[in-house]
Amino acid sequence: MTTASELAALVGGTVDGDGSAQVTGVAGLEQAQFGQLSFYGNQRYKKALAATKASVVLVPADAPPRPAGTTYVVVPHPHLAFARVAQKFHPARRHPPGISAKASVHESAKIDATATVMDFVTVGPRTTVGARAVLFPGVYLGEDVRIGEGTVLSANVAVMDRCSVGARCLLHPGAVIGADGFGFALDLSVPEHVKIPQAGIARVEDDVEIGACSCVDRATTGETVVGKGSKLDNLVQVGHNCTVGPLSILCAQVGLAGSTELGKGVMLGGQAGAAGHLRIGHLAKIGAQSGVINDVEDGAAVMGAPSLPSREYMRSFAVFARLPELHRELRDLKKRLELLEKGKTSP
Amino acid sequence: MTTASELAALVGGTVDGDGSAQVTGVAGLEQAQFGQLSFYGNQRYKKALAATKASVVLVPADAPPRPAGTTYVVVPHPHLAFARVAQKFHPARRHPPGISAKASVHESAKIDATATVMDFVTVGPRTTVGARAVLFPGVYLGEDVRIGEGTVLSANVAVMDRCSVGARCLLHPGAVIGADGFGFALDLSVPEHVKIPQAGIARVEDDVEIGACSCVDRATTGETVVGKGSKLDNLVQVGHNCTVGPLSILCAQVGLAGSTELGKGVMLGGQAGAAGHLRIGHLAKIGAQSGVINDVEDGAAVMGAPSLPSREYMRSFAVFARLPELHRELRDLKKRLELLEKGKTSP
Amino acid sequence: MTTASELAALVGGTVDGDGSAQVTGVAGLEQAQFGQLSFYGNQRYKKALAATKASVVLVPADAPPRPAGTTYVVVPHPHLAFARVAQKFHPARRHPPGISAKASVHESAKIDATATVMDFVTVGPRTTVGARAVLFPGVYLGEDVRIGEGTVLSANVAVMDRCSVGARCLLHPGAVIGADGFGFALDLSVPEHVKIPQAGIARVEDDVEIGACSCVDRATTGETVVGKGSKLDNLVQVGHNCTVGPLSILCAQVGLAGSTELGKGVMLGGQAGAAGHLRIGHLAKIGAQSGVINDVEDGAAVMGAPSLPSREYMRSFAVFARLPELHRELRDLKKRLELLEKGKTSP
Repeated sequence: MTTASELAALVGGTVDGDGSAQVTGVAGLEQAQFGQLSFYGNQRYKKALAATKASVVLVPADAPPRPAGTTYVVVPHPHLAFARVAQKFHPARRHPPGISAKASVHESAKIDATATVMDFVTVGPRTTVGARAVLFPGVYLGEDVRIGEGTVLSANVAVMDRCSVGARCLLHPGAVIGADGFGFALDLSVPEHVKIPQAGIARVEDDVEIGACSCVDRATTGETVVGKGSKLDNLVQVGHNCTVGPLSILCAQVGLAGSTELGKGVMLGGQAGAAGHLRIGHLAKIGAQSGVINDVEDGAAVMGAPSLPSREYMRSFAVFARLPELHRELRDLKKRLELLEKGKTSP
Repeated sequence: MTTASELAALVGGTVDGDGSAQVTGVAGLEQAQFGQLSFYGNQRYKKALAATKASVVLVPADAPPRPAGTTYVVVPHPHLAFARVAQKFHPARRHPPGISAKASVHESAKIDATATVMDFVTVGPRTTVGARAVLFPGVYLGEDVRIGEGTVLSANVAVMDRCSVGARCLLHPGAVIGADGFGFALDLSVPEHVKIPQAGIARVEDDVEIGACSCVDRATTGETVVGKGSKLDNLVQVGHNCTVGPLSILCAQVGLAGSTELGKGVMLGGQAGAAGHLRIGHLAKIGAQSGVINDVEDGAAVMGAPSLPSREYMRSFAVFARLPELHRELRDLKKRLELLEKGKTSP
Repeated sequence: MTTASELAALVGGTVDGDGSAQVTGVAGLEQAQFGQLSFYGNQRYKKALAATKASVVLVPADAPPRPAGTTYVVVPHPHLAFARVAQKFHPARRHPPGISAKASVHESAKIDATATVMDFVTVGPRTTVGARAVLFPGVYLGEDVRIGEGTVLSANVAVMDRCSVGARCLLHPGAVIGADGFGFALDLSVPEHVKIPQAGIARVEDDVEIGACSCVDRATTGETVVGKGSKLDNLVQVGHNCTVGPLSILCAQVGLAGSTELGKGVMLGGQAGAAGHLRIGHLAKIGAQSGVINDVEDGAAVMGAPSLPSREYMRSFAVFARLPELHRELRDLKKRLELLEKGKTSP
């Protein structure tokens, strides 16, 4: 239990209301009950704010008037402050260190004494697992794999030979790091698709989160990289030799073909895809379901398939939705023009 | 072995032909052999019906004339009747109850004596598994998980802490229930994406089927819900705090962003996506690959990305396919108009 | 270590330069170092070729002039030759034969003495595993499964009852063969979606590669088939009763609805989808993110959603991108026409 004032101190905010208001947990504006803290960051939720039962709400300076019985903590970034407070109430789970007798750890593997290796985990030769790392049941680590400090690999995660996952990462169930990239050369004389050995690795840097059943393929030669602090949602595909820049966000079911390079802080909406060998610049925003087939400049926003600058796409789509009407107008104009051409203005 | 008359009784149909015709199994009209039962429900399959080798065919009242050597069982809904008959010939598999010595079950877990726990299954503290439930190899159940009666979790399914799966559910290999939702707040001062703890749960109600490698994320706070009798195909993504209404159908590779609410009996075609915080009404039909970015009314049918009412989309798309022609016509009209404006009707 | 001349002999090429140049490995033109071999197959990489540090480059007959210090090996198909050379430097990994004491193999299963069964593998009754096959940790094989010679099933792959995987296949982590197809019949009287038993199988022929977390569903009755030499990338969905022809290529996140038939050598770009009950002809090329809703003829190239012949789609899309301009022009023409109709050519 803590108070509005204590939380204000935690997030660098100022109290508007009862600084001694008790907070026992966090929730959304609509779900929050007495004793809970919530946040308001968007005018769309004005009504929810007015009706909230939350005892304390994190708000920006220009928030609507404070509802009776509610205390405000005013901060520059309510959503961010909410994240900090929520982490306080939901600290990361600790697991008792040690290696389960039901795990299978190669004698040449090096597992830090503070790491947790649960049942049915396989750790291959020369693989290293850092301090406080946690391997859930069914995790498979191949040979010469490196897992950094404090990283959690959830159930049935696979990290293949020679790949590495940095420190403080979180990989959700079924994520696969370092499966072969998809590369073949057609031999018409057989015919067969001849496999191009995928001899490179996948490297996941520090502070990365990777969603359930997401796949980061190993490179043909060299590395596939997921940069520091990037966050990948579920069912994401990162092709061989891609570079995902630091702090990039890939929403669920995004797919990147091979050798595409994402800059820093790139955002891809759900189900978006990018062709191979492209460069998507720093801070670019790729709309959901977009299909990127050309390089994207730093800071650009694109959408559509194939993608266009977002504004252009939305304008074109607005006309698309009226195409039948335009078509009728065009036919009408044509008829009227024909009449004029015949020297008459009416039939 | 059973007869056409017995099957007619099972499905409430009437026999047209030889009620004593023997049936040993079911198949599609084209694959069926003598002794098998099939169904006819769509005029597209008129030819297949005429040529079928099936001994018995489930048909509606307005079916084409009965082919020689074939017996009809006339029912209101042939496809549904086929499902009932097929279930009779392919009853759900029974597994011997008991806990494998190669499983890892926490001492505080409660496994019903009639449940089956296979090799390499992990069951966490205080987790309960209902009567006749079946856990295939590699299943991971976290802490305080509840699995209902008769539910089957296939190989390598993961159900994370505090989540629940109702009765008579079927989860296919690699499905993941309750991985963290995808929520971060950007702290530009570091910079980093600060994780918003996903402190809620995922709750799967009774009679739900979830496909291989599909993911239902846990809520930020509160619940993500997959409603009773809903069916999710493979590789589906259900974001945090979504509510999928009862009896909804999500085809393969569908993705729902966070906090979207589906009504009853909603259908989403393959690879369709919905943005977050939307309401998709009861019985709405979302076309394959659609991108829903606005609320959808009860009973509405939409398609396209972004989605439009299906009829409007198809009309617009029909014009889209002719856009080059329209463009030419427009340029032609322009030239002719310019000529007219110059006071002439030909060059 | 080997020489340019030896590699030329391996791939049927001719040396231009120093036949005794030593090669110790392969890499891309830009990454390659002294002592490595690379390839040049596309004019886009002219600059990279001129700047490469590779000692030997596989090139076609019409390659640009040879950079100083580089040896050419001239071949008809440099990419294919590169694949052959790369395989020489990265031969498939051998695993020691034998069954881990930590695996669970049913007494009636038949595992070839040269096969490798790693920890935490489950092999069901009457299942057979061929010579030199390798089952990684967490693999689940149901009953009556057949795994061919030399096939590798990576971590946590599941092959369900009665399904088969041919010889020399490679299945990446989390791939699922033979989960139930997605078939239900609505019974409005309950209401419920009644499951149609999926009583058929999935059959993967020889020389197939299947990506991580990809799913090939079992048929309702009969077979779902992935034909010889086909290659499926990650997160691909193949619906029940589909036939994927030999040598077909399905890029990541492709989805095929039920009963669709692909001919030989079909290529589907990433995230493309096909509706059910279609025929996609031999050598057809389906663009990334396309939505195929009609049959596709042999050799055709289509793109878009719904898909059109690729040329038509690109032409229509080019106009789509200019729709706001067209709209303005149309309105302008209308106004000018109205003026003309009023008998004037200017306001």
